[in-house]
Order: sequence, then C-alpha cells, then structure tokens
Amino acid sequence: MTQRISFSLDATDGKARTGVISTPRGDIRTPAFMPVGTAGTVKAMMPESVRATGADILLGNTYHLMLRPTAERIDRLGGLHKFMNWERPILTDSGGFQVMSLAGLRKLTEEGVTFASHVDGSKHVITPERSMEIQKLLGSDIVMCFDECPALPASDEDVAKSMRMSMRWAQRSKDAFGDRPGHALFGIMQGGVTPDLREESAKALIDIGFDGYALGGLAVGEGQEAMFGVLDYAPDFLPQDKPRYLMGVGKPDDIVGAVKRGVDMMDCVLPSRSGRNGQVFTRRGTLNMKNARHADDPRPMDENCSCPACSQYSRAYLHHVYRSHEMISGMLLTWHNLHYFQDIMQGMRDAIAAGTFDAWEAEFHATRALGDIEPL
Amino acid sequence: MTQRISFSLDATDGKARTGVISTPRGDIRTPAFMPVGTAGTVKAMMPESVRATGADILLGNTYHLMLRPTAERIDRLGGLHKFMNWERPILTDSGGFQVMSLAGLRKLTEEGVTFASHVDGSKHVITPERSMEIQKLLGSDIVMCFDECPALPASDEDVAKSMRMSMRWAQRSKDAFGDRPGHALFGIMQGGVTPDLREESAKALIDIGFDGYALGGLAVGEGQEAMFGVLDYAPDFLPQDKPRYLMGVGKPDDIVGAVKRGVDMMDCVLPSRSGRNGQVFTRRGTLNMKNARHADDPRPMDENCSCPACSQYSRAYLHHVYRSHEMISGMLLTWHNLHYFQDIMQGMRDAIAAGTFDAWEAEFHATRALGDIEPL
Ligand SMILES: [Zn+2]
Ligand SMILES: [Zn+2]
Repeated sequence: MTQRISFSLDATDGKARTGVISTPRGDIRTPAFMPVGTAGTVKAMMPESVRATGADILLGNTYHLMLRPTAERIDRLGGLHKFMNWERPILTDSGGFQVMSLAGLRKLTEEGVTFASHVDGSKHVITPERSMEIQKLLGSDIVMCFDECPALPASDEDVAKSMRMSMRWAQRSKDAFGDRPGHALFGIMQGGVTPDLREESAKALIDIGFDGYALGGLAVGEGQEAMFGVLDYAPDFLPQDKPRYLMGVGKPDDIVGAVKRGVDMMDCVLPSRSGRNGQVFTRRGTLNMKNARHADDPRPMDENCSCPACSQYSRAYLHHVYRSHEMISGMLLTWHNLHYFQDIMQGMRDAIAAGTFDAWEAEFHATRALGDIEPL
Repeated sequence: MTQRISFSLDATDGKARTGVISTPRGDIRTPAFMPVGTAGTVKAMMPESVRATGADILLGNTYHLMLRPTAERIDRLGGLHKFMNWERPILTDSGGFQVMSLAGLRKLTEEGVTFASHVDGSKHVITPERSMEIQKLLGSDIVMCFDECPALPASDEDVAKSMRMSMRWAQRSKDAFGDRPGHALFGIMQGGVTPDLREESAKALIDIGFDGYALGGLAVGEGQEAMFGVLDYAPDFLPQDKPRYLMGVGKPDDIVGAVKRGVDMMDCVLPSRSGRNGQVFTRRGTLNMKNARHADDPRPMDENCSCPACSQYSRAYLHHVYRSHEMISGMLLTWHNLHYFQDIMQGMRDAIAAGTFDAWEAEFHATRALGDIEPL
C-alpha cells in the first residue's frame, strides 16, 4: 500500500463541493457521511449491510478501542479492518474528545491527558504521540491529530489558550505520524466561535501541512445557528484542494447546511443511535415507531426509500417489533436511517455535479415541511 | 393455493427417514429443523439470513402473536408471512403449551383454558376452536391441534385423564379446522412415558385422521434418556406415510437421536437463545464466547463451518463484541448456531439417503468427543 491518499475536487456549486478521496482501500465519494463503528461494529449492522447503504468509509473510536479490546490486541490480530471485517477505508478519531466526554478523573496538561477508563477504572494516558501510535496500531487510513476541545461557553482567552495548545499538539502529532504513504493525517481547526481564532488556527495547521482539515469544536451543543455561523466563514480559511471534515454532525438538515457551506466529510452516531431508539429520519421528517398510530398501518416508513425496512416491512410490523423489544427493530431502523443518510449524500453529490444544489436543497426542505403522511 | 400438502418418504436407514413435505409455499426437506420466530421474528436474524442457513420452514408462536400484535391485526395486514417477510412455510403451535408455561392465572376446563396475558394482564380464552381460528388468521401452513401437556412427574391416572381430554380436543380441532387445501393439521400424541397411553393416544389420533403427527409431552424436563426411551417405541404407533414432529427439541445430540428413532421435524429456541447468550454449538462441542481464552484467538469458532461468523470473524472479535454487549454478537452467534443446526440436518438427510446414517452418527459423536481445539 504505497499509493498516497489524494483528493480530487470534481465540481463545485456555490460553496458546495463534490469530489473523491482516493485511498488504497477504495474511493470515498464526497460529500461523505461516515457511519460510526464505535467499538469495532456499527451497532446493529453487519458490515456488508453498512456498505449496502452506500457508505464508503467508517469512523472508529480510538478511545473505546484502546480500552477494549486494546490497540495492541487489534494490531496482533491484523488490524481493525480485518478484525471488524470492513476492508474499505476507516477514519479514527484521536481519542481526545471522548476522553473529555466519557472518561472519569481526567487530568489535562501540556503533555497530554491522564484519565480513568469508563469500562474498568484503569488508568491511561493519551498524548499526541500515543494517539498517533494507537491509530497506527489500529491501521487507520485517515488519522486525526490529538487535540483539545474546550467546553463551551468559555472566554475568548480560554478558547485561545486551548486552541494554541491544540496547535502545538498538531505539530507533535505530525512529527509522530511521520511519513506513511497510503495513510492520511488530518489537522483539526479550533477557535470556538471567534473568527480571528479560527483563522489563526487554520494558518497554524496549514503551516504544519496536513492531508485534510477538520472543523473541531462544533456540534458540541452550540446549536445549529451558531454552528452555521462558524461554517459561514471558517471553511474559507482552509485550502481548497484538501478535504474538510466536520466532526460529529449530524441531523439531516445540519448535514445539508454543512455541505452547502463547503464541508466534504461528516460523521455522527445519530442514525444508528436513533434507529435503536425507534426514531426514524424520512424525507418527510422524523417518525417515532413507538407511536400507536403505526400499529395498523400497512405502508412503508418512507415510500421513496429502497432500504430493506421500507421495501419489505410495514409500519405496523416495525411498530410491533419495536414494542416487543425485538432486535430486528434496531437492525431494520438503523439500516433505514443509514440508508437515508447515504441517499441524502448521493442526492447532494449528484446535485452539485449538475449545478442544481439550490433546487435540490429547496426540495429537501419542502418535502420535510410536508410532515409525515396522514394516518389511514 | 389449492395444492394439498403432501409428504413423500424418499429413503429410510434403520428407523431414520428422509423425505419432502410439499406445500404451496415451498418444499420442506426432512428431517427438518424449524427455527423459532416467536413474535414474528427469529430473534437477531433477518428472514433472508434465516433462509441462508438452510431453513425451509419457521415456527411461529400462537400465544405470543395472539397477545401482540394480535391475530386479527396480522390477518388485516395480510397474514403472518407477509407481516414478517417470510414467504416460505410456517408452522404455528396451538398456544396451549405456552399458556401453561408463560401466562398467569390459568384456569383449565374441558372447554379450554382461560388465562391472563404476561404482557399486560388482559384476560383471554383459548379453546380448540379458538386456536384453529387464530392459526387460520395467522395464515399458518401447518396448524397444530390444541392440546394439554401435563406437568411431569404425574400419576398414570392423571396422564391418562389429560391425554384423553387432549384427544377430545384433537377431534374438536379437526372439526373446527375443516377442509383447507394447502394447509395441514397435525395431531399431537400425548401419554407421558407410558407405552399403553402413547398407543391409545396414537390410535385416537389416527381414527380422527391428520396430515402429520406430533410427539407431545416430551422435551419438558424429563431428560434425554427418558425422552429417547419414549422415542424408542412411540413413533412406531404412527403411520409411516405421514410426517412426525417432535416439539421443542433440542440440543444437537437430542436432534440426532430423535432422527435416528424416526422423527422428521423438530423446533427449538436453543440455537437462537444460546447465540444471544454467547453459547455456541460446534462440531467439537459447545463454546462460551465470554471465556477469556478466546480474547487473542485469531481462529474461527468452527473451522468447518461456512457461516459468516466463522468465515469472516475471529474468536477474538466474537469475544470482544460479546463482552462489549454489541448487537452484532447476538446476530453472528445466532447465525452460526442456526447454520450449524441446518448443517446437521443436511448431513443426516444425505447420510440417510446414502444408507450411511450409522457412520455419520459415529463421526458426529466422535468429533464432539474431541472437545474444542487447544488454546494457542
Ligand atoms: Zn428505508
Ligand atoms: Zn459458523
């Protein structure tokens, strides 16, 4: 695997972009939505089913995998792709964000972060160097810099201080990553909601030089308006010829708004987590399959969806298995949600290529505004 | 669907038999193992995956389905096959056994049984006539008579009394079932472990006349030796030219012993329930995937199994996802168990046709006796 990972930007429409990230493990069509395979599985899905939804790449969580089954074990077993039976590209996060949100007893210093595992309380350290080592052991195709994401709201001073440490960590990440043909390293822009800090962060990352750039510190509870506010200007600080990744996004309208503002890649647990909880995203908005209105309804959840849940099962069945706590409920609803998210991505890719993104977006919002079909 | 369900006995080897039950919804190769789809789903499996294991027919539980989503609702939605997306044959039990094992506040009379739902406490009645009605609403291909299975141990007198009521219920079931081309009605032999009562029950059923005959009142905790004791003589009381169904069996060696004694059909929740609990049946015995011995083991659970769990995943992965409570654990281990059970059935069908059942059985037991492969 000595082919370098490259990005070709094939078309733009306004700020929206479509292209392809080429990797030795296959192409990633952008804009791309990455399902999350937290602990070596996209919950409730077989990997071949994830692929069938149209996913080109998965996200794996360094934090979870380093704790269980451990990166060293995965390495001994031949790497994460083989371990989880997914031979296409995998992007791994750096572990930093989840340490901050999940682990106990954290201690943050310039060196890195010390924390206790949420699984068994054992003590661990992640530094930029250790994060690079773990992601290499996992065999990740796209590696993320180790960064710190400050909890918001925070003062400009605190955001700046945190961002500057993340930039020093970005340099350390790059140094530790070294030169690994076939693998990419992405930097992560920080700076909160302050344009000057975002620009400073972008310049620092560009000086170091990365294969792609993530927009960090968003989708952490600030709300769509504040997030779009940053996305209105921050992507412009980044190079045109590298992929831009918005971490942890999001709901269908977040995704569409992000792509409109120049984002190329996203990931989120929402479609899979919602699916397990009976919540379904359709062209006509969200459905709760727990709702008794579906109990006698022979119609599909989304008549324009070709996923197995919509093409082979009635709302009545999906309501029944959800209420009966059957595993097939989570399996089918997750499949639908992931399929629908990928349909959105394909729709946007086609629209951008055709120069009809605005019309596509208007239709997307108009159909959602109709709301669900009337009860029978 | 006016084709009648028929049974052709193609070969015998000792008492073991192989043949085909032909139905309008497809052939059922015997000896057949029927996975259990309790509440409209074989737990943790997509129906196309169940089919991929080699299953020709599923079992549905009248008791569960009548309570939720109700037989009337399934009928309105087009029947159980369409509801659960399984177009091949379905056998439904009568509801009687599960009322006795699951429901609260049961009251048994000559008329039938009154009970409280385990789901919501609501009051219900099943009589032979109501059981036939429910199974018709479900659209079952093979309908079971409503019977009573006495709790063991019981006196000969109590077993006889219960068996004779079941025979009166069998006549009422037959009368209520009527003539339904394309659908079969099976009688259920009772009589505990007493040969005279088994013979009396068989004669009563044959006098009424059924499309197939089940061996009831076994696999209810009496142990393999007692069960095989009954199977050594009871199938001989039944017609050669009709299928024989042993309900609720069983473990791999139970299944092999039953086929050896002339049984054609079986069902059991064991492969699916065990799969969800991390227990796996292999050619070399049972495995508990929770066991730490698997944590670093790159080998398949069963090197001679072609199921997705064995062909695409290591023991280490399956151990990891079981310990991490990931749904894919139940999905893959259930798939393997169902696949292995169907492999046993195919092995026996082939061996009976070739006249080599004894050799096949010896190999089956010898391989199991080896125990699991040595840890690395
Ligand atoms: Zn769908
Ligand atoms: Zn297997």
